[in-house]
Order: sequence, then C-alpha cells, then structure tokens
Amino acid sequence: MSKNYITDVLEKVRKDAPLVHCITNYVTANDCANIILAIGGIPTMADSIVEVEEVTAKASALVLNIGTLSEEKLRAMILAGKTANKNNVPIVFDPVGVASINARKEAAFKILEEVKPTVIRGNMAEIKTLLGLNGNSKGVDSLENIDRENASEIAKKLAVMTNTIVAITGEKDYISDGKKVIVIENGNKMMTKVTGTGCMTTSLIAAFLGVLDNGVLSAILGISSIGVAGEKAYEDIKENEGNGSYRMKLIDEVYRLTPEELMKRGKISE
Amino acid sequence: MSKNYITDVLEKVRKDAPLVHCITNYVTANDCANIILAIGGIPTMADSIVEVEEVTAKASALVLNIGTLSEEKLRAMILAGKTANKNNVPIVFDPVGVASINARKEAAFKILEEVKPTVIRGNMAEIKTLLGLNGNSKGVDSLENIDRENASEIAKKLAVMTNTIVAITGEKDYISDGKKVIVIENGNKMMTKVTGTGCMTTSLIAAFLGVLDNGVLSAILGISSIGVAGEKAYEDIKENEGNGSYRMKLIDEVYRLTPEELMKRGKISE
Amino acid sequence: MSKNYITDVLEKVRKDAPLVHCITNYVTANDCANIILAIGGIPTMADSIVEVEEVTAKASALVLNIGTLSEEKLRAMILAGKTANKNNVPIVFDPVGVASINARKEAAFKILEEVKPTVIRGNMAEIKTLLGLNGNSKGVDSLENIDRENASEIAKKLAVMTNTIVAITGEKDYISDGKKVIVIENGNKMMTKVTGTGCMTTSLIAAFLGVLDNGVLSAILGISSIGVAGEKAYEDIKENEGNGSYRMKLIDEVYRLTPEELMKRGKISE
Repeated sequence: MSKNYITDVLEKVRKDAPLVHCITNYVTANDCANIILAIGGIPTMADSIVEVEEVTAKASALVLNIGTLSEEKLRAMILAGKTANKNNVPIVFDPVGVASINARKEAAFKILEEVKPTVIRGNMAEIKTLLGLNGNSKGVDSLENIDRENASEIAKKLAVMTNTIVAITGEKDYISDGKKVIVIENGNKMMTKVTGTGCMTTSLIAAFLGVLDNGVLSAILGISSIGVAGEKAYEDIKENEGNGSYRMKLIDEVYRLTPEELMKRGKISE
Repeated sequence: MSKNYITDVLEKVRKDAPLVHCITNYVTANDCANIILAIGGIPTMADSIVEVEEVTAKASALVLNIGTLSEEKLRAMILAGKTANKNNVPIVFDPVGVASINARKEAAFKILEEVKPTVIRGNMAEIKTLLGLNGNSKGVDSLENIDRENASEIAKKLAVMTNTIVAITGEKDYISDGKKVIVIENGNKMMTKVTGTGCMTTSLIAAFLGVLDNGVLSAILGISSIGVAGEKAYEDIKENEGNGSYRMKLIDEVYRLTPEELMKRGKISE
Repeated sequence: MSKNYITDVLEKVRKDAPLVHCITNYVTANDCANIILAIGGIPTMADSIVEVEEVTAKASALVLNIGTLSEEKLRAMILAGKTANKNNVPIVFDPVGVASINARKEAAFKILEEVKPTVIRGNMAEIKTLLGLNGNSKGVDSLENIDRENASEIAKKLAVMTNTIVAITGEKDYISDGKKVIVIENGNKMMTKVTGTGCMTTSLIAAFLGVLDNGVLSAILGISSIGVAGEKAYEDIKENEGNGSYRMKLIDEVYRLTPEELMKRGKISE
C-alpha cells in the first residue's frame, strides 16, 4: 500500500464517518464504541430483534461478535446478518469463545450457515475450531493433510471453505482471501493484558469496511492500525502504569494515528 | 444563578448523595455510574422487572435511557416510571436512537403515554422525532408553522406538548419549560468523540434532580457541569492523548468541579 | 504470611493464569475482566444457560455476582454454581444489592440454598442481610444476642451458618472462617468513588482461589491486594485528577503489585 493510498483511506474514514452497527458482548462494548470513534466511525450498538433489521440496513458495516451470547442475541445476529447480506452491508464476524464452548461453536456454525460475512477475525484456536481442527472434530478428509500449526495454511483453508477473508490475529497476524496470505507483525504482547483487544480489532476492520469495498485491505488496515497503536501505547507506558493506562492509551493512539506512522511502522508482507 | 446558589446545590448533591436509579444501556452504564459518583450521587443500575419498583420507590431520581433497549427492559422502564410518578420521584428520559430506529420511536412514545418525566434530554434529531418532525411524520397541524431548524422553538413546543422540561443538547444546548428558553454554550466538540456523553449528561441532570425540586435548574446545572468539565478536560489534553484520555478527564473534571468554576465559565443565557 | 509465601502465590497466579469464570453485572464487567488480567488471571464472562456448565467445569474459579440480575441470569448462576460444586471449582459469591432489594435477597437465599460458595464477600449491610439482621427479619433466636454493629461477630456468625469463608469489606475488612477473624486495614476512601470496587475485590479473591486451595488466604490476598493498590493509586493522584483517573490507576497498581509491597504495606491482623 502506498502512503497516498493509506492517507486517502484514513481521511475517508474520518470524513465519511461510517456507521458501524455492532451486535456485541457487554464486557467490551464501550471500548469497541470508543475505538470506532477513535478511527473516525460512528458506532451503534442495538441488539434487539425488533431493531436490528432497520439499524443494519442503514449501516455501512456490521459486526457480529458472539461474546456473552444469549439465544435471543443469536437470533438477532442471524436476522441482522441476513439483512446485511441482502443490502450489501459488509459483515465482520468475531467467533469469540468458539474454541472452548460447544454451544458457542454451534452458534457460530449456525451463523455461518445463514449469513455470509466479508471477514472472519479470530485467534488461532478460534479459526481452527471453525475449520473443524479443534477438539473432537470428526476429521474432514480434506483437512487431513493440513499442518495444524501453520496459521497461513489454516487461514487460507478457511477462507476457501467459507468464501470469505479470514484473519488470524496473535503475535503475528495472518490474513487470507484463499489465495494469498498477508502477514502483519505489529502489536505488543501487553495487548493480551487488556480485555477486548480482539473485539476492538474486529471493530476497526468493520470501520474500514464501511468505506472500503475490499475485505483484505480493510483487515490489513484494521489490524495494522491497532498493532501500531499497541506499539506506540507501550512506548508511552510510564514506570507506575499498567494495563489500565495501557487500555486508554491504545484507544488514544488509534485516535492519533497518522498515515505517515502507519506507513513507517506497518510491518506488512505477503 | 448566583454563586451562593450554585455553591449550595453542589454542596447539597455531595452531602445528600442522592440515589439515582438508572435503567440504561450496557454500553455506557459504567461511565454513567462513575459520573454520578463524580458529582456526588450514588448510582444503582437494577433493570429486572421484579426489582425496579422497589429500587425506584427508594430512589431520589430515575433515569430512563433507551439505548440497547429490549422488550423486557421496556416493560421494566414503564413499571419503574409509573412507580416514580406515584412516589414523586423525578424522572429524566433519554430517547437514545429514536431518530433512526422506528421500534425505538414506538417504545419512546409508549413510555411517554404511560409515564410523565420531569425532564426529557436528547439531541436535536431525537427531540424533533418526539415532536413528530422527523421522517415520515403524518404532519401534525400545529407543527406546520414550526421552523424545523430552530432548536429554541422545538424545545419549547415539545415542552408544552408533553408538559415537561425539554433539553436539546449539541453544540449549543437549549432548555425549555414551554415558556422561556435557556441557552448554554459550554462544552467542546471532542465530547462527540466519546461514546455516551449524552447518557452521562442525562445522569448528571438526574443527580441534580435528586436534590432539587426544579427541572429547569437541574437541567441547567447538569448540562453546564459536563460542558465546563468538557472544556477543562480539553485544555488538559496532551499532545500524545486522544479520546481515551479525554473520556477519563471528563469524569475527573466533573469530580473536581467547583462552584467558582461553574460560575466563572458557565455561559448560560435566556 | 511470610514474604516467601506471598512471592510464591503472586508468582503462581501470574504463571498459572487461572481461568476465572464470572457471571456478573454489565456495569462493572469490563473492570472486573481487566483487574483479573492485572493480577495474572484470565477472565471469561459467559452467562447463557446453555454455556455456563461447560465454562465453569473448565474454570479454576467461579464468580457469582448478582448486580443487574435477571431471572435468566439467576438460573444460569445456580446451574453454574452446582456445576462448580460438583467439579470442585471454588466459588466467590457477591450478594450485590441484597440489603436494599427484596427480590435480590430472595435470589441470594435461593443461590445459597442450592450452591455452596467457598467465599462470600459483601459490605456490612449485605452480610447482615444474609444473616437475617436487616430490615423486617423475623428474628432468629440465635441472632438475638448478636451485636449488630460488630463486624467481626457478624462475619463469624455467617461463616458458621453457611459453612463458608465470609469477608465483610469496608473501611476495615473482616474475614472469618467461623473460628478466627482476620482484620485488614488497607485501602482508601476514594475507592468508594469508583463503581465496582467491591466487584473487583470479589474478582481478585476468585483469581487467588484459582491457584490456592484456601479460602481464607485467598480472601486476605484479594482484599489486601486491592487495598494496597488503592493506597498507591491515591498517592499517585495529581491535582487535576479525580475518580476517572483513580479507577484506571487502581487497575494499574494491581498490575504492578509486588510481593515486597504487599508485605510492607499489608495491614493484616487477627
């Protein structure tokens, strides 16, 4: 990505202020809303079954995040997701907790059966679970030859299977459209000491999708933005500060992000 | 308002520590609780249908905020609202989202049919919606001559129609009891970069209503308090800070608010 | 407790990273998650009836916090609590609001009938309510001779009645196993200006219980950790800061807590 391109996109998010409809968990909803504001979008968090169709139809992007899921919320997510698909509103799906909770895994599969996301973002365990590589999976033939530790391969495989963009975030991040794999090496391990950095990353991807008709680029920009912010926030941590301050600085640094810095610090390779 | 009066009221909130019962959204509930503590009140957030009557009856003020509304919560709000009316507990109603979500608009009208708030606080689009000036309104005769961009007129009109105090907050704030209109010109545009500043303003009005039997003055004090805090918080923003820090400083500055500062900085006119 | 012991336990929490399953209120869930991360644990907040059995069974400790309770959440808590008891997962029960809400009191009694917590943590009014000393209690014979202002006696009595560890937190904290009573005198009154410091304390006790098979020691460590953090955070408050900053610093100081400081500052006596 050229600096001009990044400049254009960052300016576009801040000028267009895309409406990002989040159906998300109550633990990190506030941070997700503030990080969407930080990058330049407008968050809206409605999750009632009687509201979501209307909100999604007007939104520029939809987040489906299954943390603190309830059966009611699942129904609202499916309805919102279908509405988004019908209205060409791009969706980022965040399968929080699928790797360790069976009911969550079933919910995720149900969503993926009925809704087509543009981007799926999760950690390695979550993406492996969606691929059927986790726990007592019955063994899908085509998965037998997959290297279970190879994130590139796994991201690519799920991207092909679901016909979406898949992003695995962690120490390194992997983004695949089923053909190529982009690797991002930004971020700081202190990010694991703040709840919801995954949810926030998902929210940022959605904000970019709200102005960009390109899932791969939106994932790259969302993930590298929070990664660069995470590095800068860490550099700014003082001796008497900890994860409370870091959480705030992370949002601050997304707010202050410039194209120059994203360009200079972004470690993005194919 | 004289300085002595403001001093008395601020001291009274901090001494009496009014119990403010909030039925509110999960996105900004934490900030609302902390800003109520900052001004001197005690927040309590119960929203179960089996709890709200008892909590409201003991409260000094009630907030009904319809962000992240559910059908269950709506029922709880109406029950709490009726209980408040019966027990002379003042209510601040915050019609979050009515301007863009039809189901939310219906919910708001249902609340206003069954419950009589003391103060209604919203942004211009929300208050216009309550007045029937937004979207496919069927055109109320008496509204035909209203200037749709004139906030003073709109606030006054809704105040008359609902027999409440109406506050429109935005770049300028307008408070009307149906006769006069008070204008407040405090605040900073950075407040739009933090989720829930509207909800927080509503919470502050409720805290003042908890000790003042006067909706207009409570609205003036709540809105000018957060406005002055917003200005001071902005002045204190450092080069490497953004909306994360600003959110925290906003609450800090409400906590630190003195009558002197409110008097000196408050831009309140009729 | 010797310094070596404290060092071992703090290191163990940070090394083992116990999974703490919280079924808790939406107002303070984010702070509870971040303070669990600060001490070294891993929070997980699932509260759906179809998820809690599985999550609890895998957890190292369970928090049942009845703030913003709903009937659905109550059922989930009882199911999770029974699962925890069956799987020897220690439980910390936080009876938020029982002193002022009757439905909440009934819910608490229902939980205590069906679930056996390891630790119960509440403020004086809450613990008195559980003991039947609050409001229109019908007067239990064995309670007639209790000094209603004596926290030591009250903690001890409830500990005997429920066969648990009881912790009353406030200006002074009292921890009893029904025989001895430990008193802790750390903390700062600024902690009452932040919503959820009680919930956060409960979360910390659960994190320690996740690595320590000892309810008394876990309560001592959880309560003194946040108490010492509260003192240090207060010392670090600058002239232009208030409860917003204090909330963040409180989490920071838990994150930075060292065995040396806990040892040096902890005011723990029997």
